[in-house]
Amino acid sequence: MEYSAEKLHEEKVFKDPVHRYVHVRDRAVWDLIGTKEFQRLRRIKQLGTTYLTFHGAEHSRFNHSLGVYEIVRRIVDNVFAGRPEWNEEERLLSLCAALLHDLGHGPFSHSFEKVFDLDHENFTRMIILGDTEVNEVLSRVSFDFPKKVAEVIAKTYENKLVVSLISSQIDADRMDYLQRDAYFTGVSYGHFDMERILRVMRPTEDQVVFKHSGMHAVEDYIMSRYQMYWQVYFHPVTRSSEVILTKILHRAKYLYEHKYSFKHKPLHFYSLFEDNVTVEDYLKLDEAVVLYYFQIWQEEEDVILKDLCCRFLNRNLFKYVEFDPAKEYKKLTRLSVLFEKAGIDPEYYLVVDSSSDLPYDFYRPGEEEERLPIHLMAKNGELRELSRESDIVDAISGKRRTDHKLYFPADLIEKGRGNSAIKEISELLEL
Amino acid sequence: MEYSAEKLHEEKVFKDPVHRYVHVRDRAVWDLIGTKEFQRLRRIKQLGTTYLTFHGAEHSRFNHSLGVYEIVRRIVDNVFAGRPEWNEEERLLSLCAALLHDLGHGPFSHSFEKVFDLDHENFTRMIILGDTEVNEVLSRVSFDFPKKVAEVIAKTYENKLVVSLISSQIDADRMDYLQRDAYFTGVSYGHFDMERILRVMRPTEDQVVFKHSGMHAVEDYIMSRYQMYWQVYFHPVTRSSEVILTKILHRAKYLYEHKYSFKHKPLHFYSLFEDNVTVEDYLKLDEAVVLYYFQIWQEEEDVILKDLCCRFLNRNLFKYVEFDPAKEYKKLTRLSVLFEKAGIDPEYYLVVDSSSDLPYDFYRPGEEEERLPIHLMAKNGELRELSRESDIVDAISGKRRTDHKLYFPADLIEKGRGNSAIKEISELLEL
Amino acid sequence: MEYSAEKLHEEKVFKDPVHRYVHVRDRAVWDLIGTKEFQRLRRIKQLGTTYLTFHGAEHSRFNHSLGVYEIVRRIVDNVFAGRPEWNEEERLLSLCAALLHDLGHGPFSHSFEKVFDLDHENFTRMIILGDTEVNEVLSRVSFDFPKKVAEVIAKTYENKLVVSLISSQIDADRMDYLQRDAYFTGVSYGHFDMERILRVMRPTEDQVVFKHSGMHAVEDYIMSRYQMYWQVYFHPVTRSSEVILTKILHRAKYLYEHKYSFKHKPLHFYSLFEDNVTVEDYLKLDEAVVLYYFQIWQEEEDVILKDLCCRFLNRNLFKYVEFDPAKEYKKLTRLSVLFEKAGIDPEYYLVVDSSSDLPYDFYRPGEEEERLPIHLMAKNGELRELSRESDIVDAISGKRRTDHKLYFPADLIEKGRGNSAIKEISELLEL
Amino acid sequence: MEYSAEKLHEEKVFKDPVHRYVHVRDRAVWDLIGTKEFQRLRRIKQLGTTYLTFHGAEHSRFNHSLGVYEIVRRIVDNVFAGRPEWNEEERLLSLCAALLHDLGHGPFSHSFEKVFDLDHENFTRMIILGDTEVNEVLSRVSFDFPKKVAEVIAKTYENKLVVSLISSQIDADRMDYLQRDAYFTGVSYGHFDMERILRVMRPTEDQVVFKHSGMHAVEDYIMSRYQMYWQVYFHPVTRSSEVILTKILHRAKYLYEHKYSFKHKPLHFYSLFEDNVTVEDYLKLDEAVVLYYFQIWQEEEDVILKDLCCRFLNRNLFKYVEFDPAKEYKKLTRLSVLFEKAGIDPEYYLVVDSSSDLPYDFYRPGEEEERLPIHLMAKNGELRELSRESDIVDAISGKRRTDHKLYFPADLIEKGRGNSAIKEISELLEL
Repeated sequence: MEYSAEKLHEEKVFKDPVHRYVHVRDRAVWDLIGTKEFQRLRRIKQLGTTYLTFHGAEHSRFNHSLGVYEIVRRIVDNVFAGRPEWNEEERLLSLCAALLHDLGHGPFSHSFEKVFDLDHENFTRMIILGDTEVNEVLSRVSFDFPKKVAEVIAKTYENKLVVSLISSQIDADRMDYLQRDAYFTGVSYGHFDMERILRVMRPTEDQVVFKHSGMHAVEDYIMSRYQMYWQVYFHPVTRSSEVILTKILHRAKYLYEHKYSFKHKPLHFYSLFEDNVTVEDYLKLDEAVVLYYFQIWQEEEDVILKDLCCRFLNRNLFKYVEFDPAKEYKKLTRLSVLFEKAGIDPEYYLVVDSSSDLPYDFYRPGEEEERLPIHLMAKNGELRELSRESDIVDAISGKRRTDHKLYFPADLIEKGRGNSAIKEISELLEL
Repeated sequence: MEYSAEKLHEEKVFKDPVHRYVHVRDRAVWDLIGTKEFQRLRRIKQLGTTYLTFHGAEHSRFNHSLGVYEIVRRIVDNVFAGRPEWNEEERLLSLCAALLHDLGHGPFSHSFEKVFDLDHENFTRMIILGDTEVNEVLSRVSFDFPKKVAEVIAKTYENKLVVSLISSQIDADRMDYLQRDAYFTGVSYGHFDMERILRVMRPTEDQVVFKHSGMHAVEDYIMSRYQMYWQVYFHPVTRSSEVILTKILHRAKYLYEHKYSFKHKPLHFYSLFEDNVTVEDYLKLDEAVVLYYFQIWQEEEDVILKDLCCRFLNRNLFKYVEFDPAKEYKKLTRLSVLFEKAGIDPEYYLVVDSSSDLPYDFYRPGEEEERLPIHLMAKNGELRELSRESDIVDAISGKRRTDHKLYFPADLIEKGRGNSAIKEISELLEL
Repeated sequence: MEYSAEKLHEEKVFKDPVHRYVHVRDRAVWDLIGTKEFQRLRRIKQLGTTYLTFHGAEHSRFNHSLGVYEIVRRIVDNVFAGRPEWNEEERLLSLCAALLHDLGHGPFSHSFEKVFDLDHENFTRMIILGDTEVNEVLSRVSFDFPKKVAEVIAKTYENKLVVSLISSQIDADRMDYLQRDAYFTGVSYGHFDMERILRVMRPTEDQVVFKHSGMHAVEDYIMSRYQMYWQVYFHPVTRSSEVILTKILHRAKYLYEHKYSFKHKPLHFYSLFEDNVTVEDYLKLDEAVVLYYFQIWQEEEDVILKDLCCRFLNRNLFKYVEFDPAKEYKKLTRLSVLFEKAGIDPEYYLVVDSSSDLPYDFYRPGEEEERLPIHLMAKNGELRELSRESDIVDAISGKRRTDHKLYFPADLIEKGRGNSAIKEISELLEL
Repeated sequence: MEYSAEKLHEEKVFKDPVHRYVHVRDRAVWDLIGTKEFQRLRRIKQLGTTYLTFHGAEHSRFNHSLGVYEIVRRIVDNVFAGRPEWNEEERLLSLCAALLHDLGHGPFSHSFEKVFDLDHENFTRMIILGDTEVNEVLSRVSFDFPKKVAEVIAKTYENKLVVSLISSQIDADRMDYLQRDAYFTGVSYGHFDMERILRVMRPTEDQVVFKHSGMHAVEDYIMSRYQMYWQVYFHPVTRSSEVILTKILHRAKYLYEHKYSFKHKPLHFYSLFEDNVTVEDYLKLDEAVVLYYFQIWQEEEDVILKDLCCRFLNRNLFKYVEFDPAKEYKKLTRLSVLFEKAGIDPEYYLVVDSSSDLPYDFYRPGEEEERLPIHLMAKNGELRELSRESDIVDAISGKRRTDHKLYFPADLIEKGRGNSAIKEISELLEL
């Protein structure tokens, strides 16, 4: 039998707390899950440092990837199968792209990408196309299958219907992570009726659309998304831990560049510091490795690196105050001077962090990231953009919300009491 | 105000997926959570290698420890408070002991303890009494408070009522882990009506007892426990990963003892290999560190260490067959010889693993580990041992169930086809 | 001991699927639950005819009343107790008002109130103040206690804080029914984090307010409310059953007024038909009685009464089309004429039904029903109206949404095929 | 197209709180749900008087019947379809039998059947085969289809595999009611992993069997069943309400037989009293009708009928004490004499009620009701009876547990204080 059509002798199931069971019947999917590149996702947390805010958020990207796969499987096997708009030949491609869409994520992606100027989507592509076990399995399906999978994930694949399953404002990725992150953090947001949403999905030539009768379920999903962003993903305590993590990486790089002599050579970081990371280097990085270095760096001579690592590992985070960049620019400058005076390096200990979310957007051609709008399908087949049908979605559509906070180590400031710079700092920060 | 009575200015809450919220009002409890020894529990998984079987089981001991604390808090604040049998002065002690009961767990405790002959309870005691942040916080309560906390956890504290809250056949520890492990794995076992059990708990002089009207809830708990053991904790796939992990540790120790030259010195393991682990060494160990070594050992020269580490990290586990040690002793011997012949070291690749559980037991003085039975309290105050009242519990009471399996690498055997030893192996193992 | 302070020897608990347990410790509350007027609420469904759309919605007002009581109990005992703004003497009053707030509801209130011009709030007052078991229990607390309870429910009680617990845009009543109705229907809307909302509630002089940190939980509640209205309460199929029910009552009244001779005298309806219902008459009405009459009316001579009763009992409902009263007035007139011609009485068989909801409103003095806005309390104690803080709530605030539908018996029209009037009807209704 | 194969234009779904959605695609199933005999099940509660103990238990047999149908649908469409042992032609028969298996239940079946010597299974058969809408729909499938459906429900159908889907120790009926009754009462028992049980079901020639790997899920189901019986179905308070209901019926029958002149003729009861109930009479009975009569009987002259009806409607139930029929026979006789003396008719006010459950049984040919055992299927296809494989099931297998209680009106006895007979009664009952 052709490998692409090969089924397992008996269906395999994974017990999943969110979708109850994840079902695998295709040999190729099973083999992909067994590759070392995919298993590596077990060592990368889905929500980065969020576990320092919500202790339940310890789940991995492996966990989430299986979930996205399962959602796409239900769509293509239970909803799309047999419909004329759906080409059965795209089935395996959709499943593999769903499973592998996050393959290029590294440890604490958010911070690493920022500091070292990396792009996980790029690594996903390189892993799929490179000399890897994943590539080997995909190539068994067909010569150009790895390329197709990479294209779907890169959103450049010609069949936009397949692309929209994985990447749109309401795709399998988002539907899984909202529910999964809500489940593991324990927050009561993040619930919506996915079963209903799946039932009203319909394939069209270039995108997935939704029967109009399911509009309220889609609205509910949009609201869940909005709440999860502000309640979980942008939680100010999580951002504090991100700030510290980012500063650790900055400091380590700085030290390396300034020929600091590490007690224990940070071999795994060399290519990052030197900006020439290969796929092979990249695949050796995971959160265990990073946490290992943070632990041994607690014993370095450099007081900043040492302090920041202790803070991160022992969750001794920075405090924060609201900050308005437009109005409080001078205050920030003054604080910077005062920190310097007080012997607290403002480069590492006085940080403005901004979060911003666009809950839903209709189509604006030419904008930085063109976001495909959600379309509802009326009984007569006519398509209408969601925000024109839903008052609630219209209300929040296209409205970017931004939040700025200023982070600093309240404990260090407290310890310095008596010092006159510290006194003024305390007043400015209203401590 | 005395530290022991000091309350936080405002109650702190942790969002917990199992108990919804964990509430902290006592300054001492809050400070303990912030110690580095307690934060270290975030880097040790509650269920060791179980995540290789149930992908959701990625939660940490930090997670569980907060849960045990919260259950004890609900008992002492909502059920025991005000009852004459309950001494309010034991409240903070109970809370701290609950929070810290697992403090001495190391990475993958089960395997590490077996291979290196460690005892986590011993480390818990040493961390509480040693030169640590935890000790410092506890000492602030009173001079002998650390000692008392250690005694409660060691079950030697004179007030057995307090001990039974943390360690009995139905204690806060077990009630938390059954529910928590069920939640994170997603299995449907592990549910029982804890709210009802807490409501029927009553303090007596030397133990917690349960109002007779709650018997069915207690029965249900016993059944949950039974199911979780066989469905989750002793799952044969998890045991396969434990087998591999144990063999990695054995091999590394063997190599060290035989002066093998590691490419990268396993500094964190030296004291383990030499059997002189200090508390300070121990606290540096966590699962990130262990996984870091397993990763770099994938590149060692030694083929056994290298192979086992690859297997563990990439979840290429051993297969298993049922094994009856009484009847199949000869078969094992024969297999051992054949493995040797086929060039597969049976010391590392042919392993019998046994699991055994005693779901509930009445009191048998003098037995290896005296297990305190569960007592029901009739309306007239009379106490009766659970198994005398419940048919179901009686049925399983004192009945030890044991399961033996033989583990081996089916893939290696498969590769060897053609070899005559392999052929006989395949027949014996019915591959 | 004074009756008002009397506690039960042992706390009573009701197992409740929504709040897990309902706890009763006050003698007066226990006695109220045992009165025949309160037990009567078991025979009145919480959601009227909704069970014909969502088969799970068979729960009674008894069910809901216990739930509202429990929420208020948690607020006053767990959140308000001990705060200076809260007067402990209002505790029992709040509990009793919560329990009894729906006491005056009759069978299928919505339709009965419309047809017979009744007001359940008026009946609640009369039952509380009249010669009833409820009045007897309340009077035992104090001479003027029944009057106070009635005032709280009527929103005229001087302590507006107490009133706002039971009647505001986010009160115990709404919080219970959203969750309860979601639970019994099984829809996935209606979930919000009530535990968090309760924790951020704060008493002030004239209303309950919410700590600003709980804003997102309140937003989520507003969204739940919005979704439940349109997904459940205004479901077009439920409205169809309401239309039929209303027409049955109209017809029965019409027949009575026109001296029709019922086979079996509708004694329980006489005072309704004659518009002189006493409390005593009213208390004899429940849904069992109404359904009994509908059943025997299936055997009446009058074809309209008979047909409508069969339809209701056997769920043979009217179909519907969208209807725009502004634009389609002429169409309705024409249909009316055609129905007449076709021998289908348009008075009973061609019905426009309108539903309208105002999801949230800020304060507009002088409007028909002044709705108290929700206030958030900033850290500095300042109060801000919700819609000024929340983009989402602002977006839907004050926006009334209305939906009109035209109901008719598609089966009767289908049967009449051939008839020319029917033909035109079919075209107009696009059947 | 043949009616038996006819599909609805679009699948219909019912929102179900237990199974999330009930799916209907077959025209015949849809038509059956719309018959008046099936809609009547909305007016009969699934758990009779249990709502007087667990206020959430207000769900109807309609509710449950849809659930049983849905479970069978999932089995035949998702598990059995395509397997050689399964005959696709039995599909519709299985679905219809599942849907209609409880069709013959009357109001408060338990009590009515006992007092009037009725058998709901007999009525199910008569409704299916008689001149009814249900019969009309079934006959459209084929001439002998009604007979087949009746046979499946009566367990006489030749294909025992089909029979075992609906009637065995682990059938769709039991699986639905355990979960549904747990959901509506809110108890935490009644949960088991039905999804897993369905996945391991396998058709054989004469019964459904279960893959051995699903044994623990089956054990869990048996335990749920056991707990639900003793925690919910045999709850002593529910039995108290059953006792009163039964005595009401006895009294009404007695009065009728003794020519008592009812103020309002109990027409609906005549054929019951005279023991000549036709299907037509029977279908007019529902719980609304019964409650209507109970309400008007509250105003009858007969003090016993009047009192019992007030008790039932206002939940003024009998109290109970444990009773050992073997040892306390004399006490009962004495109490009977004393009740008589005190003017409290022991016939109606002193009642022994017994409940008895056999949680699981292996096969015992010739016993009153032969119960088919549950079989597990080993990997090699061999069948083994459950209790031989499961320690827990073995422990409770075949063990009948019985509970006797003595019910009486404590309030009446309390009122009689002073009277010497009452005094002795109080002592004997330890009031």
